[in-house]
Formats: sequence, C-alpha cells, structure tokens
Amino acid sequence: MEQKISKLLEIIRNKNPLVHHITNYVSANDCANITLAIGASPVMTDDINEVYDVVSKADSLVLNLGTLSDSKVDAMLKAGKRANELKIPVILDPVGAGSSEFRTQRTLRIIKEVKLAAIRGNLSELKTLCGVEACIKGVDSAEIHNGKDGYLAVDLAKKLNLTVAVTGPEDIVTDGYQLYKIKNGNMLMSKVTGMGCMCTSIIGSCLGTGADTLTAVLAGVAFMGIAGERAYEMLDKEKEGTGFFRIRLIDSIYNMTPEIILKKCKIFNY
Amino acid sequence: MEQKISKLLEIIRNKNPLVHHITNYVSANDCANITLAIGASPVMTDDINEVYDVVSKADSLVLNLGTLSDSKVDAMLKAGKRANELKIPVILDPVGAGSSEFRTQRTLRIIKEVKLAAIRGNLSELKTLCGVEACIKGVDSAEIHNGKDGYLAVDLAKKLNLTVAVTGPEDIVTDGYQLYKIKNGNMLMSKVTGMGCMCTSIIGSCLGTGADTLTAVLAGVAFMGIAGERAYEMLDKEKEGTGFFRIRLIDSIYNMTPEIILKKCKIFNY
Amino acid sequence: MEQKISKLLEIIRNKNPLVHHITNYVSANDCANITLAIGASPVMTDDINEVYDVVSKADSLVLNLGTLSDSKVDAMLKAGKRANELKIPVILDPVGAGSSEFRTQRTLRIIKEVKLAAIRGNLSELKTLCGVEACIKGVDSAEIHNGKDGYLAVDLAKKLNLTVAVTGPEDIVTDGYQLYKIKNGNMLMSKVTGMGCMCTSIIGSCLGTGADTLTAVLAGVAFMGIAGERAYEMLDKEKEGTGFFRIRLIDSIYNMTPEIILKKCKIFNY
Repeated sequence: MEQKISKLLEIIRNKNPLVHHITNYVSANDCANITLAIGASPVMTDDINEVYDVVSKADSLVLNLGTLSDSKVDAMLKAGKRANELKIPVILDPVGAGSSEFRTQRTLRIIKEVKLAAIRGNLSELKTLCGVEACIKGVDSAEIHNGKDGYLAVDLAKKLNLTVAVTGPEDIVTDGYQLYKIKNGNMLMSKVTGMGCMCTSIIGSCLGTGADTLTAVLAGVAFMGIAGERAYEMLDKEKEGTGFFRIRLIDSIYNMTPEIILKKCKIFNY
Repeated sequence: MEQKISKLLEIIRNKNPLVHHITNYVSANDCANITLAIGASPVMTDDINEVYDVVSKADSLVLNLGTLSDSKVDAMLKAGKRANELKIPVILDPVGAGSSEFRTQRTLRIIKEVKLAAIRGNLSELKTLCGVEACIKGVDSAEIHNGKDGYLAVDLAKKLNLTVAVTGPEDIVTDGYQLYKIKNGNMLMSKVTGMGCMCTSIIGSCLGTGADTLTAVLAGVAFMGIAGERAYEMLDKEKEGTGFFRIRLIDSIYNMTPEIILKKCKIFNY
Repeated sequence: MEQKISKLLEIIRNKNPLVHHITNYVSANDCANITLAIGASPVMTDDINEVYDVVSKADSLVLNLGTLSDSKVDAMLKAGKRANELKIPVILDPVGAGSSEFRTQRTLRIIKEVKLAAIRGNLSELKTLCGVEACIKGVDSAEIHNGKDGYLAVDLAKKLNLTVAVTGPEDIVTDGYQLYKIKNGNMLMSKVTGMGCMCTSIIGSCLGTGADTLTAVLAGVAFMGIAGERAYEMLDKEKEGTGFFRIRLIDSIYNMTPEIILKKCKIFNY
C-alpha cells in the first residue's frame, strides 16, 4: 500500500486533476491552497446556477458542510447528481453533523440522494451518521462500540457501500471489508481550524486521478498526517506556534515526495 | 487586575469554552484560529435554521457585523435571544457601523433586541453608536468629547448597561463605572485585516469561562495587545512585514503564559 | 514609466485610498491584507442594501467575480453604476469567466452596464470575453490569435474603451493603443490561490489615487510581479514552499520601496 500511495502522489502532479469544491467560508482559502500544494487544481463555487456546468468539467467533487445553508445544500444535490451521471467521484465532509438537527438532516439527505465514493469526518460526526442510520441499536451496542470505533466505521461503510475515513488522534480508513489505521499526524493539528477540511480536499485530489477509492482515501489521510508530522518537526518550538504550524503544513504538502512518504508512512491493515 | 487576567488564561485552557461565532467571511479563518490558539473552541455558523441549536450548547456568542446581510441579522437576533434565555454571554463587534445607514440601523436593532454583555469596536464605530443613541448632543458636546473618548465609552456603557472596549492606538475598557486604559499593542496591528475581529473572538473566549464581564473584556484586550507587541519583537524587520506579523501574532497567543502576561501587561485604572 | 510607477507607490502610501471590494470568500482575507500592505484601505461588503452608501465614500471599486451569485451581481451593478456617477474608477476581475454559462453571461452583463476603467484576468478569461464579444470571428481568426495574445487584449481594450491586463507567465497591459509586457513574477505564483485577485486589489489601490488608468494598471501588475520575485528570492527552498511564499509575498508588498521598483521592474513597450 505504501508503494501505491507514493506513486499516487506523482500521478496527481502529472494529471493535475480539477477538484470542484462546494465548501465553507472559514477554511476555503486553506482548502484551495492545499489542493494546489498537492498538485491538483481547485475550483470553488456554490451557486446553483453554475454548479452543473462546473462539476461537468471536474475530475472530482468535494462537498464540505461547514457554514451550511439550504441554498448550498441545493447546489450540492445538483452537483452531486450530475457527478454521479458522469461517474465523477464525490467525497462528503459532514462538518458538524450532530451539532444541529438542521445539519444532521441535510447531511442525511445528501447521503441518500447522492452516491458518494467516500466520507471523511471526525468520530463524533461519524457517530451521528451511524446513530441516525441505526448502526447503533440502543444504549448497549453503543457502549460496545465505544472502545471500538473501527467497527462503527466498517458498519457505516458497508451500509452505505463507500469508503469511510475517521480522522483524529489515530486515523481509520475502511471500505467495509478492509480496515486500516494510519498512525501519522501530530496533536497540533487539532489546534488549527480546517485541518479536517484540508484532509478532505487532499482526498478529493487523490480521487480526481481515477485511482481506486480505498487507495485514494488512504493516500489523502496519510499525506495529511505525514505533513502534520513534518510541519511539527520543522517548527521552532521556542518561538513558533499554531500560526507557523499551519503554514509549514501547507509547505510540507508542497514539498512532499514519494521518498518521504515511503519513509514516514505508518499504515496498518487490521 | 493583572493577577486576575493571568489566571483567566489558565481557566480558558482548562475549560476550553465553546464560542459560537456569527461572523464575516473576511476574517473568519483568523478568528477561528485565534480562538483555538487562546485555548477555546470556535463553532461558526450563521444559518437561521441552526443557530438556535448551536448557541444552546455554546459558552459564549460572538456577533460580528462584517460582511453583513439581513439573513445574518435575523440569525444574530435568533441566536442572541436564545443566548439571553440561557444566560450565555454575548459580545457584539459592530464592524463598520456608520459606513452605511443599513449597517448602523441593523447594529442598533441588535443592541435593542439582544442583551449584550459587551461591545468591542474602534473609535468611529463607538461614536456612531453614541451619536445615534444621542450620547453626543449636537456639535458642541461632540467637540467636548473629541479629546476625551473615555467619557464617550463610559456614557455608552452606562446607557446600555454593558462593558465597552474601544481599541486603537490606546485601548479603553469601561463598565460605565470603572475606566481602564490598556497601553499594549503595536502600530502594525492597524495594517492587518481582522485584528479587531480577532480581539473580539478572544474576549468571547474569556467570556465563555464564566468570568465577570469586566475582567473578561480587559483580559481579551490585554492578551491581544501583548501578542501584538511580542509578534513585533519577534519580527525580522529586514525581511518580514505584515504577512509574518499576522502569523507571529497567532503564535504569540498560542504561546502566551501567565508569566508573560504579568511581565508585559500595562493596564491602568483611571 | 518605471519612474512614474515608483512614484505611484509613494502616492498610495500618502493618500491611503479607500478601496471598496465586492469579492469572493476564498481570497477575501488575502485581498484585504495585500490592500493594507500596499498602503491603501480595504472595505469589503456585498449587500445590496449598503453598497450604494459604501462605494460613495470610496476612491475605487473592485468587482471580483469569484464565488459569484445573483445577489452579488445585483450589488455589483448597483455599486458600479453609483461609482460611474461619481467618477470613481472601477476594475473588474472576471474570475472563472467561461467556466459556466451563468458566469459568462453575468460577466458580460456587468461589462455592458458598468463603465469599467480596467479588466484584469488570465488568458482563458480574456479569451472568453473576446469570444463572446466577437473579437474572435470563427475558427480561423481564433487560430491566428492563438500565438499573439497581445492582439486579443488590444482588440478587447479598444472595443470596450478600457485598459486590459492579462496576467500569466508573461503579463500584458494595453489601453488599446499602447501595448506593454511586464516580465516580472515567479512560477510559484500559479501555485497559490488568489494571486490574480490580489493583483486586481493592488491595481484597485493604484486606481484609487487618481492616477491615469494605464499607469495604475501597469503599476499594479508590476508591483505584484516584483513582490513574487522577491518572495521567491527570500524563500528557504529546502524547507519552505507555497505556504511561506504567500506570506513572503504579502511582506514584499509591505516592504516595497521606489528603489526596489526601479531596480527590479521589467516593463517593455511594444
């Protein structure tokens, strides 16, 4: 797998896939810059009048639910269905699913109406999706799952027939059959906004190459984790903090090489 | 006071308050990152369908009027009233009040319908609020106030029964009874967008701890000013400018300690 | 010309023009910061209820079509017409023209209804504007133009009676009568989002001084190119990438002097 994902980096840089984002205004700039840094091209528009045209020329579609509104949901559904027609892979980032009834319902609607290749979220977002989708059947099984988040992700992936990435202190990726853990990353990543969004954009860039979904998701999660580690290594801890860390992380993506990936990557198959 | 605010920093980092922002798209990323850097957690959403749910779980609410629209005003009123019900402190940043009739009227409506704990703005925003609220009675008294902006702030604080912070070359904080000046900060802060917004987000983080309002506002203003000074001290003036200054300011908030606050803080009671 | 544009830098810093932006949420923060860095003041608002008031106090107006929507188009038309009444110069950045029928049509509507001082875009955006405006008459003449993009820009400038800047590996500026090429810049600029938008904001800052349009556009394009070169020179290529490059570019604008401009500027009249 390490060989496959290190080669995927070179494919992105050769193919320069166009990644259509319908995303939030908090991390949009970072997502555009990380997409450019990995070697893809971002296009960001969320107006219902043009998403059909724009996604039709794209190589992948990122649906990011930060700063959600109903007009964005409508645009996401339109773009998502068009992407499905053209077999353009779609990844969903269910930012904040569970934080309001509105957001949870809209998230579920998108999952129902758009065929997704992948979902990337944090554990609480994943649990929201599972809970409402009845992966958790009552209090008991929820308790059983608590220590075994991998099973939750496997259940969700099987149920929705897609690849799930759960990122956090330890990252999980599964297509419902195989389960991987990625042990890269650094705790400072939780202290910078948009790190999850940026990871999703990188996965979107990987998907845009036409790589198989499981490899693309594993690669995106690993690239982000390795970049986080390298950003932290380069940090001058005396004088620098989360401001520099964010800049160094973008640089680490830009300067990533297949050699760095092979040396640093910690992917484990369970 | 220096002791109280240096302790407040530790309380934020222990309590990790959730700060709901309804804010603008220019500085949203910086506001989220500075909120994380001080030790709180930002949540940013402005859709009227979910602000009720989101603010209900928050520890404080920041209403920032940059890139204002009527749909955001509606969301602010809904979130603000819910915050009042739950006794969650609300801080208003009247960005650009006075720059258009629309914005001034919407600002006054929010002040009228939501019980605010605090307002932070610059001098011209403060004067707009006072002018329309008749703190300035004709040309004469306006002239009297010109050199004595502290009185304006005291008047506004008394009239609205809240704490006012006016930030600029010299910062003023008053609850209508006590008047403080904070002589921290650096002139480069006026050359970076969103510095006022970021200060408001830090005050919001302080308010989210449950600290008394005057202490929270003083702390937020002082933290921002001290970070500006330290960012400037660390700047390589030969090669770096406002780009690095902004990054170093976020780092300075992240790396702030009670010791730094006690050493640097210049708060004066008048 | 080098003398004229180096003096323009000092004029911006003395006059501190107010530049009203109606712009996108991806690069808004960068555009505000680069406007401050060059010595002007940005004000960013796109609500139809206040753009009339806001532009009335401005020295120039930037219409940037990124993340476009019909409500923004309405605000642009209202602000643009008011700017025309008051003889405030307007610059259009037709971000993504050609990427959807919606965007192309809205771009053309703005060009038709607002008298522009200048347009800055990349080559494909320029070609879209020319194509629909019938600069390209059928396949043959399009082929003739392919290697001679300067002629396209000259045609468009004459037809619309404004100054056109086409930025890319080599920059072209023309008012329809004179044609300039600017050979500054660095290839890394294509790997950071919003570089075109930032260039437009700097041109908007130059226009806000009341300088003649051709000089203002040449100056803005040259300042941006020189800053890109200097940012690259200062980059630690071992450890830094596009993240630092963006920060260093803002710094280079902030630290620019007439001497640097005279030394670095590569403007050629054709």
